[in-house]
Amino acid sequence: MIEDNKISLVPEKNISMITFKKNQKEENKQTKQKTVKNESLSDQDELSKGKYGHIKMIQSNQTYKERKFVCIQDLNTDYLDKIVWIRGRLHTSRAKGKQCFIVIRQQFHSIQGLVAVNEKVSKKMVKFISTVTKESIIDIEAKVQKVTNPIESCTQKYVEIHIIQFFVVSASEAQLPLQIEDAARSINNNDPTNLNIKVNQDTRLDNRILDLRTFTNQAIFKLEAGVCKLFRDILTNKGFVEIHTPKIISAASEGGANVFTVSYFKNSAYLAQSPQLYKQMAIAADFEKVFTVGAVFRAEDSNTHRHLTEFVGLDLEMSFKYHYHEVMNTIGQLFTDLFKGLQQFYNIEIKIINQQYKVEPFKFLDPPIKLEFSQAIMLLREAGIVMEDEDDLSTSNEKLLGKIIKAKYDTDFYILDKYPLAVRPFYTMPDSTNPKASNSYDMFMRGEEIISGAQRIHDPDFLTERAKQHGIDINKIKAYIDAFRYGCPPHAGGGIGMERVVMLYLGLDNIRKVSMFPRDPKRITP
Amino acid sequence: MIEDNKISLVPEKNISMITFKKNQKEENKQTKQKTVKNESLSDQDELSKGKYGHIKMIQSNQTYKERKFVCIQDLNTDYLDKIVWIRGRLHTSRAKGKQCFIVIRQQFHSIQGLVAVNEKVSKKMVKFISTVTKESIIDIEAKVQKVTNPIESCTQKYVEIHIIQFFVVSASEAQLPLQIEDAARSINNNDPTNLNIKVNQDTRLDNRILDLRTFTNQAIFKLEAGVCKLFRDILTNKGFVEIHTPKIISAASEGGANVFTVSYFKNSAYLAQSPQLYKQMAIAADFEKVFTVGAVFRAEDSNTHRHLTEFVGLDLEMSFKYHYHEVMNTIGQLFTDLFKGLQQFYNIEIKIINQQYKVEPFKFLDPPIKLEFSQAIMLLREAGIVMEDEDDLSTSNEKLLGKIIKAKYDTDFYILDKYPLAVRPFYTMPDSTNPKASNSYDMFMRGEEIISGAQRIHDPDFLTERAKQHGIDINKIKAYIDAFRYGCPPHAGGGIGMERVVMLYLGLDNIRKVSMFPRDPKRITP
Repeated sequence: MIEDNKISLVPEKNISMITFKKNQKEENKQTKQKTVKNESLSDQDELSKGKYGHIKMIQSNQTYKERKFVCIQDLNTDYLDKIVWIRGRLHTSRAKGKQCFIVIRQQFHSIQGLVAVNEKVSKKMVKFISTVTKESIIDIEAKVQKVTNPIESCTQKYVEIHIIQFFVVSASEAQLPLQIEDAARSINNNDPTNLNIKVNQDTRLDNRILDLRTFTNQAIFKLEAGVCKLFRDILTNKGFVEIHTPKIISAASEGGANVFTVSYFKNSAYLAQSPQLYKQMAIAADFEKVFTVGAVFRAEDSNTHRHLTEFVGLDLEMSFKYHYHEVMNTIGQLFTDLFKGLQQFYNIEIKIINQQYKVEPFKFLDPPIKLEFSQAIMLLREAGIVMEDEDDLSTSNEKLLGKIIKAKYDTDFYILDKYPLAVRPFYTMPDSTNPKASNSYDMFMRGEEIISGAQRIHDPDFLTERAKQHGIDINKIKAYIDAFRYGCPPHAGGGIGMERVVMLYLGLDNIRKVSMFPRDPKRITP
Repeated sequence: MIEDNKISLVPEKNISMITFKKNQKEENKQTKQKTVKNESLSDQDELSKGKYGHIKMIQSNQTYKERKFVCIQDLNTDYLDKIVWIRGRLHTSRAKGKQCFIVIRQQFHSIQGLVAVNEKVSKKMVKFISTVTKESIIDIEAKVQKVTNPIESCTQKYVEIHIIQFFVVSASEAQLPLQIEDAARSINNNDPTNLNIKVNQDTRLDNRILDLRTFTNQAIFKLEAGVCKLFRDILTNKGFVEIHTPKIISAASEGGANVFTVSYFKNSAYLAQSPQLYKQMAIAADFEKVFTVGAVFRAEDSNTHRHLTEFVGLDLEMSFKYHYHEVMNTIGQLFTDLFKGLQQFYNIEIKIINQQYKVEPFKFLDPPIKLEFSQAIMLLREAGIVMEDEDDLSTSNEKLLGKIIKAKYDTDFYILDKYPLAVRPFYTMPDSTNPKASNSYDMFMRGEEIISGAQRIHDPDFLTERAKQHGIDINKIKAYIDAFRYGCPPHAGGGIGMERVVMLYLGLDNIRKVSMFPRDPKRITP
């Protein structure tokens, strides 16, 4: 009846072929399972024939349209006593005498499943289920039942499912390079088991497909998708047009430092550090208000919590009538609307993330606080910092300023306007009255800069003059200057680091937590 | 009163400083204007003092909040006799005795403006306006007036504006490398002037900021933004999550051919040819349905009408329950919804583009037509084409098939399912019954492929086996295979070339027309 590595069960109407895998390697790993297989069939075993097992690799030769699949999150008491199908991951399983308790997981939802030997379920079936490897994808037919005591370990606390059929769709290897429970453990809580096992960042990233399966990571990347969606929707509603700018460029955008070189057929090219020239060209080409979402590359050997060599830029550029504050205020409002949207549409995700990483909720004002750079310096001097009027803010002073402003205004977001001309690029428009100031701004979340922007010089002669004052070779930026020779409206804009926004909104400590497959000087895998 | 290169006018309340530019180079070019300046002021000239001129470079020192700016497209007969401000481009100007007719342009809208010498307008002002260079950005105060005969050369045919004040915000150089009218000329129409001047593709692309200002190009890139928006919105509504995948990768995705190499600190890396591995990893990591919009790179030395070295990929991947047609049909429906959305929301843009490039409107069926590859071969054989069962479709056969299907079903979009296994990559799932077929599909618009997709092999052992059969070094794709070791649902997906969709939907003849800053083997500028 039972061959050494194959079990032939009479196919149920729904299952065309049920076989155990022949693969030798897998069998060696799944010795427990083999033990089960080698038990002899008893009459009682016949009960569950065809109701469990590994199904053949799904190759699209069946559809099983009669199976009513439900999502775990939808299973409320309306489903009591109903029979449903669920596809999910086997999160945990625990055999206990003649029963087996399992937890089935879908993204950030989970439910308890139960199978017990009885007049309809064989001992063999229960044993089989108890030996299926964690993280396997399973198809379960089950009856939804009420529970007497809330199940604290699952998101579905008031219902559980009693298993009728159980099939493995895709088996996981038994040895996991990291445990989902470990990766999901709250780092700020005392672990009740006193284990407090942590998974370090590199192990997580090396095994990203497992790490991403935690509730927290599922929620982080849904929220991240939300940040991009809100950014685009808010701007589209304001009349902005999405554009796409090239990543391969012929000349390094800003002087040539920190640029990756690409072999381009018989020549060399570079990876764009910013879409700025192209955004500005779109303005010179009458698109009025544009945004672009795309990869931005920085060949900086910075190994910090907030630097990536490749990140997603949320860039925008906008022509204005007479004052760059028309643009600065639009960007400020964009952030306010973005934060409101996250609160409104991603509340569940924020709560889930907060269970693992406890931080103060992000606070903001509507409209946002605006300070001038000189005011910021005064605040810092009051706090004992010694700095000159035209010194740029160091990272630590930015952090401190964030704390001062939080204490004073109770906001984690603010705008800092009128940076010293000396610390901004040559194309920044100087202030019209104060020759040491410029029409430029940065914006901050939790004391870290997330966007840098300015009015750009739209006059080709003045741009040439400023470039020369910066010692820039005019020939190298000819194409840039020429873009303004045929009439260009005054304009301003900025570039937002998408991952920084997500990291700082959530109060996370490392940008690698919010980049699905991060790139830094030491990592280009997976 | 008049200095050689400067005119001092008494500032109007709204204008803080009005000066002519001092730049010598510009003056040399604008000799006509200089002639105007050197005329002596007469009493009559006093009339218009401060009501025209070049305003100083806008440096955000004024806001002029009292000016009520309107968009040209909004100027209907409700505005009759009202005074409005307009900022736009000087599209054309034509002096005619004591009058000057101008056309002001905003994106794809235009209106006629008129200024005539009278008791309120000086001869000098009219002369000044007539000498302002085309493509300059201008601010105009004007009264909206009804016209007796429709103005066929403007989009506003029933109203014109009578100019009260006229200021140049940003002057264009007089010599334009291409004329907007030439770039905008319909190529299929006989030019009534018999000039029929065309602007060749390279001249357009070399001067892209001017070329992009034509009505057609303004409309093309608004529609293109719409394609991306619809793609994302349709999928988001179906529960897909947007992800971002790295462009810098450590190993060439598919064997190493046609890949750009990047210097990565002390090592080498590559530019991703497709986000496929990452989309699949997201599926293995439980995201269920994902899409990504981003740059894709192909180092192919293909100089054709439809190849770019960098383009925007609209990629999606989706887990399914039992049959890859769940995914294929989702993609088919995505296209139907996309085409419907374009008709509904971008009708104006489509009409504008069609004025310059006359083509048959794009036709589609709901639901789309699905054919199997074997049926396609039969259709081609009926048309006299000789081909084997497992030959891939050549570009010319694809085109022919498109024509046959258009004639037969009256659709420009269709799905071709079940490609021969032999012509698909190693990771494509073979058909379960026919060993020569595969669970893969392409979709076509106007006879050109715009998406290639398939069920992927989600079983690591079978994937290894297939890779070996393809002679692929298993060590080089270890990370890819390992992604499936910890349980992975069956899944399928595809990658859409965004620019191809736009090009083919509009029936354009060259992909460079729909890439804002195209990249091909010979072009990486601007």
